[in-house]
Amino acid sequence: MFESAEIGHSIDKETYDAEVPALREALLEAQFELKQQSRFPVIVLINGIEGAGKGETVKLLNEWMDPRLIEVRTFDQQSDEELARPPAWRYWRALPAKGRMGIFFGNWYSQMLQGRVHGRFKDAVLDQAISGAERLEQMLCDEGALIFKFWFHLSKKQMKARLKALKDDPLHSWRISPLDWQQSQTYDRFVRFGERVLRRTSRDYAPWHVIEGVDPNYRSLAVGKILLEGLQTALKSQGPVPRQTNIAPLGESIDQRSLLGSLDMTRRLEKKDYEEQLITEQARLAGLLRDKRMRRHALVAVFEGNDAAGKGGAIRRVAAALDPRQYRIVPIAAPTEEERAQPYLWRFWRHIPARGKFTVFDRSWYGRVLVERVEGFCTQADWMRAYGEINDFEEQLSNAGVVVVKFWLSIDKQTQLERFQEREQIPFKRFKITEEDWRNRDKWDVYSEAVGDMVDRTSTEIAPWTLVEANDKRWARVKVLRTLNEALEAAFKKQRK
Amino acid sequence: MFESAEIGHSIDKETYDAEVPALREALLEAQFELKQQSRFPVIVLINGIEGAGKGETVKLLNEWMDPRLIEVRTFDQQSDEELARPPAWRYWRALPAKGRMGIFFGNWYSQMLQGRVHGRFKDAVLDQAISGAERLEQMLCDEGALIFKFWFHLSKKQMKARLKALKDDPLHSWRISPLDWQQSQTYDRFVRFGERVLRRTSRDYAPWHVIEGVDPNYRSLAVGKILLEGLQTALKSQGPVPRQTNIAPLGESIDQRSLLGSLDMTRRLEKKDYEEQLITEQARLAGLLRDKRMRRHALVAVFEGNDAAGKGGAIRRVAAALDPRQYRIVPIAAPTEEERAQPYLWRFWRHIPARGKFTVFDRSWYGRVLVERVEGFCTQADWMRAYGEINDFEEQLSNAGVVVVKFWLSIDKQTQLERFQEREQIPFKRFKITEEDWRNRDKWDVYSEAVGDMVDRTSTEIAPWTLVEANDKRWARVKVLRTLNEALEAAFKKQRK
Repeated sequence: MFESAEIGHSIDKETYDAEVPALREALLEAQFELKQQSRFPVIVLINGIEGAGKGETVKLLNEWMDPRLIEVRTFDQQSDEELARPPAWRYWRALPAKGRMGIFFGNWYSQMLQGRVHGRFKDAVLDQAISGAERLEQMLCDEGALIFKFWFHLSKKQMKARLKALKDDPLHSWRISPLDWQQSQTYDRFVRFGERVLRRTSRDYAPWHVIEGVDPNYRSLAVGKILLEGLQTALKSQGPVPRQTNIAPLGESIDQRSLLGSLDMTRRLEKKDYEEQLITEQARLAGLLRDKRMRRHALVAVFEGNDAAGKGGAIRRVAAALDPRQYRIVPIAAPTEEERAQPYLWRFWRHIPARGKFTVFDRSWYGRVLVERVEGFCTQADWMRAYGEINDFEEQLSNAGVVVVKFWLSIDKQTQLERFQEREQIPFKRFKITEEDWRNRDKWDVYSEAVGDMVDRTSTEIAPWTLVEANDKRWARVKVLRTLNEALEAAFKKQRK
Repeated sequence: MFESAEIGHSIDKETYDAEVPALREALLEAQFELKQQSRFPVIVLINGIEGAGKGETVKLLNEWMDPRLIEVRTFDQQSDEELARPPAWRYWRALPAKGRMGIFFGNWYSQMLQGRVHGRFKDAVLDQAISGAERLEQMLCDEGALIFKFWFHLSKKQMKARLKALKDDPLHSWRISPLDWQQSQTYDRFVRFGERVLRRTSRDYAPWHVIEGVDPNYRSLAVGKILLEGLQTALKSQGPVPRQTNIAPLGESIDQRSLLGSLDMTRRLEKKDYEEQLITEQARLAGLLRDKRMRRHALVAVFEGNDAAGKGGAIRRVAAALDPRQYRIVPIAAPTEEERAQPYLWRFWRHIPARGKFTVFDRSWYGRVLVERVEGFCTQADWMRAYGEINDFEEQLSNAGVVVVKFWLSIDKQTQLERFQEREQIPFKRFKITEEDWRNRDKWDVYSEAVGDMVDRTSTEIAPWTLVEANDKRWARVKVLRTLNEALEAAFKKQRK
């Protein structure tokens, strides 16, 4: 979920200085129009990792825009007046009026995350709080509010470096409260539960925007642009309630850096190493699937990837290790008539393995947010809601002991071209290449964007995506097998505890 | 929430026999059209109290309609195949295809209710299950499904009588499983948690229909008509997803019996009794508000009622007993400019009392589902979602220790006429009667329907409505005071546990 916010997004000073004046002017204009219309309020929620630039960004927004129309609220300790009333009272009294903007630090999400991270309650209570937040936001949006939710992210390494830098800087060291350091220790918990919260509360009417916080230029520009775009669309929309159209893909990049682009595509394995490692990993998988702890689990492996990335070959190397009674390979093509008469997840539910079993999906439910999205086989609303539905689906699998491992096999455009040409020349491979493959190739960039969004929105702590550098087939096959093995071992280990 | 299903709805045999043939024919026709279109599936969920006619009704539906297009599914013990997979798998494999109808007994609601009633988990886990059910149904509806949810209800007394009758009947006694009897013991828990579930999961896309189960004619006709109306509207709607329009008010009555109509309007108090009881109850209220246990609570009293029902007089009798520093009376009229710039609940949140205090709302947030609904000041979507929002609001108050007591002061039409005429004749009362009052009077029936829906949907275990027979002002005033006292005492008692 935070993958795209750990790849070192940055904007150089020149670009930044060139873009900011126009952005400021446009923001001011939008703010003025917001006031003129006084048709809806704007609520901006600021959350995320300590040291990721939350405060600085809000400070900057106040400089860029007219601060008389912005109310910045921090919700720390409750006052005695607030303590004497229901918890939500403090938020209600701070709501911005129509035409105004309220920026909420330390909002309802901070409260529930702090509580869960510090062990004051368990997941069930966190889920209650999540469901309360959903209902509050749904209501606010139904009443016309435009809600922006920003999650400022840093990788663990980045956070540590940042906190150290701040501490060493005499101008900033006062800002490091004990709580911050404590959070540094509990970074993993914060990210884990943060992911749960984001996954559940990223709704079409109020989606989360994850912002990488390392580079101030990048984060400022990213936040400014998202605000501007959302404001402009809402101001132009008709009707009593502004249409929420700030459902821009999370991974939308303003610096041309993307998750897939950050893969090291030169990874490769020598033949000798490959043969050795392949056999080792195959034997390990066979052993794990025979392990008696497997009785409490099932394994689902999802294979997605570029055309000609070598999914088939990788799947064969997985299967080669195993007893055919234990696994099934389910190739996913266009739905049958029977399947079309059901909700789209139905055709995957029917193939869910029983405990002890292993199902390989050669393409999967992700078709909805890949080919169906790109080719327009379903509406935008359909594929937008699919992210949440898929997360729900995989959570149910995971809760039932199913280990879900998802692979995206990635090759670069040149490698694909070579493989296509090779396929056309080799007789027994010719059936593997069609006109459609060439057509898909023309849409390389839109597919890449869809993949980025998919990973950002569906790579979760319970079912993470593994991006496989597949220019070298040997490297890819071994990485796939090793990932499966590690996932199973992790599940067995967790079970023992 | 179940008030309207405990007033003895019934349909006499003649009416029933006269209506059934046309209903059957229309249902068959709708079913045929559903198959022809094969555009969406229909899912019918059957839940409720044991002995309330769930099985009989489904049996009847199968007789009335073409059973080849209906799949009746019972989900009891999980099979070994089901046990080896995620819990939802059993529902997915049983989903009806487009064009068909699935009737689900013992569905996800039964599972969560049984678990909570028998203490296998607490509210937080119940809420998780509720939120899972919401997401499932939302997804099914987004995918086109038409969902009907029926809750068959019996009062406790009715249930006991019914189970006894069944037991004594040799033809039926086999149907009483031990579980049923156990449920008879746990009726209160079943109703309490059932209410929580219904309150949370009655959504515009899949609302609950509460059916009184005592009279077979009534319940059969009610279910048949709701099904027919929902089917017909969905079949006529355009687009890939049928518009869910089966959001008919819960209290819609097919036998002219209504909640307000079932009040005994002849209740009255003699002057001497009144004076005695009034003073007793006033002193009791003053004592309770001074009680040190009040420090943990606040009190909110909501007064709604017919025009000229005596709200003002009742409120004065409440206030007369109290220290003015301890209570506030908030009269609710049209919202101010500042209030119009905020979500509609904002103007009530700002008056929520701190702990130890008492706020009287002379009219309230219920304006949205009463005057705003009837006069068209807001859209149907707005007042439909208000029920859930209000329940959420009151739940937050209740969780924070606020005791919420809600009164509907009810008079009959003749009494209102007399009071209006009296007001016009007495100089110092003339300001109390306006043209608007006469206009409202013309809409007596629509207002009554709105009141019925309001009580059905917002009378909850945490904040129940009290219907006050107010033809006799004395009776009404004493009942109001006594209800307040009992509510406070109950809260104090609960606190002690």
